[in-house]
Amino acid sequence: MAIASQSLPTQGARMAAEIAEQPAAWQRLLAGRAAIAAVAGLIAAARPRFLLFAARGTSDHAALYAKYLTEIVLRRPAGLVSPSTMTAYGAQPDMRDVLLVAVSQSGGSPDLLRTIEAGRRGGGLTLAVTNNPASPLAQAADLHLAVMAGPEQAVSATKSYTAQLLALYLLVDHLRGGAGEAALALPDAGDALLHSAGPAVQAQAARLRFASRMVVTGRGYAYPTAREAALKLMETSYVAAQAFSGADLLHGPLAMLDPHVPVLAVVPGGVAGAAMDQVLQRVRGTRADLFVVGSAAAHADCILPESTPEELSPLLEILPFQLLALHLAVARGEDPDAPRGLRKVTETL
Amino acid sequence: MAIASQSLPTQGARMAAEIAEQPAAWQRLLAGRAAIAAVAGLIAAARPRFLLFAARGTSDHAALYAKYLTEIVLRRPAGLVSPSTMTAYGAQPDMRDVLLVAVSQSGGSPDLLRTIEAGRRGGGLTLAVTNNPASPLAQAADLHLAVMAGPEQAVSATKSYTAQLLALYLLVDHLRGGAGEAALALPDAGDALLHSAGPAVQAQAARLRFASRMVVTGRGYAYPTAREAALKLMETSYVAAQAFSGADLLHGPLAMLDPHVPVLAVVPGGVAGAAMDQVLQRVRGTRADLFVVGSAAAHADCILPESTPEELSPLLEILPFQLLALHLAVARGEDPDAPRGLRKVTETL
Repeated sequence: MAIASQSLPTQGARMAAEIAEQPAAWQRLLAGRAAIAAVAGLIAAARPRFLLFAARGTSDHAALYAKYLTEIVLRRPAGLVSPSTMTAYGAQPDMRDVLLVAVSQSGGSPDLLRTIEAGRRGGGLTLAVTNNPASPLAQAADLHLAVMAGPEQAVSATKSYTAQLLALYLLVDHLRGGAGEAALALPDAGDALLHSAGPAVQAQAARLRFASRMVVTGRGYAYPTAREAALKLMETSYVAAQAFSGADLLHGPLAMLDPHVPVLAVVPGGVAGAAMDQVLQRVRGTRADLFVVGSAAAHADCILPESTPEELSPLLEILPFQLLALHLAVARGEDPDAPRGLRKVTETL
Repeated sequence: MAIASQSLPTQGARMAAEIAEQPAAWQRLLAGRAAIAAVAGLIAAARPRFLLFAARGTSDHAALYAKYLTEIVLRRPAGLVSPSTMTAYGAQPDMRDVLLVAVSQSGGSPDLLRTIEAGRRGGGLTLAVTNNPASPLAQAADLHLAVMAGPEQAVSATKSYTAQLLALYLLVDHLRGGAGEAALALPDAGDALLHSAGPAVQAQAARLRFASRMVVTGRGYAYPTAREAALKLMETSYVAAQAFSGADLLHGPLAMLDPHVPVLAVVPGGVAGAAMDQVLQRVRGTRADLFVVGSAAAHADCILPESTPEELSPLLEILPFQLLALHLAVARGEDPDAPRGLRKVTETL
């Protein structure tokens, strides 16, 4: 072969770099949070009574996190829009008193653009949360939040996801009168976790080398983490990774579990962790193979920093799973930077 | 052995009987739809502006169907509640102008009961949709709709699911000024489909005998069908069945597909079917093994009656998948009436 090996990119090098960049990206967003405060002020003035979120793929998991924050912190009813209702079916809901938030890395998906347009036509206030301030979505919405993750090149989204989580958290925190102080410790905690998680994650990636299916579970704020972890594993390692809220797992899918199904659980401290006790007990009863990312109290295989408030924990919880998806793909000889069959911007109608 | 074989129940006999009973159950509900009209009148008088649905497991798929109806037919913003926000986290959202609908076969799940209580405390109008009029949920809500499916004994829900779909459809149809006429043809169509679907379904069950994973996909009104089909297959046959909306499949999970992953697609006529064209083209590109339940125009393996309006199609689409779950479980030597690890009433908090 005439091509020197060092001229070929290492498999997963982009994804690895983007995973490592996350704490620095959060730092940028925190430093620029005056812009988020300004958007929060405009939203507060409009006094929305109902929040709707529209997103696809990884961004949909950030939207789900924001839905939990809305229900719990802002005490407002919230929903996730099914974009096909406004695109394929041409529905035009009455959007008065609604804040419609579209979340998208690229800001380029036609279905979200049409959803924002329907939101405006219906009398709603619209907000685009994107990584690309020049995107069609950012231009079409009344308001825009830039998540400032920087260009993301790996097809599998990592830094844009946690930047979306942080931007949405900061927005909600400003809406309740905060100024994002609780998030200031996140970059250091993220750096520490990316370092400390390595050995447990690499050992688990080796153990999962020949697994063809797995289940990921978490509750409350940790449920979006379970969903996003499953998507990373599907995208990069082509396994059938299924995510369930702990409660939904007990409503049927538990029957699938046996000693040959790996279960990955997200069990942070706080309410979500406590609510997982019953679930983990039932999972252990199936003799499924359990790997826990969570608190020291949960005897986790990969331990999260203790001091992070539960509502910010999703930013940290996902990091070990991003690393696991990366290492598992490489262990399988796949290239997580460019999964088969996928493009970076997915255009659906 | 002293026990005569005929004294032992045939595996799956209960589930088979309950699948077959569905058209008769629909007929009962249609005959009693004056009760639904009365509930619709009380709801219309309250003029709710936002609709929220709360449910778990199979009932959550009926709730998702109702969310599509709400957005498209009633033109009202809608959401699916994450019950843990009101139970584990004790959130108390502002529910004025909200209709909160809890959907549950048993009406006995503590988390839904607490969600209804929080809905009432928050100033919302509450409705319970259950198969048990004497249940705690039916007692706790302002309004109650009985789905009248009759006692359901198989752990895996079938007739209670389609009865929930029909009750929710009739409610929405009355709210828009209809009287349920379009649904009157359903019982006959259901009987015909249960009969005609047999050979294709049994052949597919034989082909899937050794599959350990599969993907189910549909869009729009057919997406709840894909979710429910996957749950039936998980519960009865212990396979890793994953459901994706057609659009979400293209946002990542498509990478998992290869010639060894069976894909089950729901492609009815109408908007949802047309929106699946792009998806099926990409799926065929992966050389995945495709089985289609849908319209003759979609060259389906199992063909649905042509004359059913798209918004009622989910009642019919799910029937071949219920039969598939039953036959696949029996082919694998499992008992679909009593899946391992599950109870009929799941109590989660």
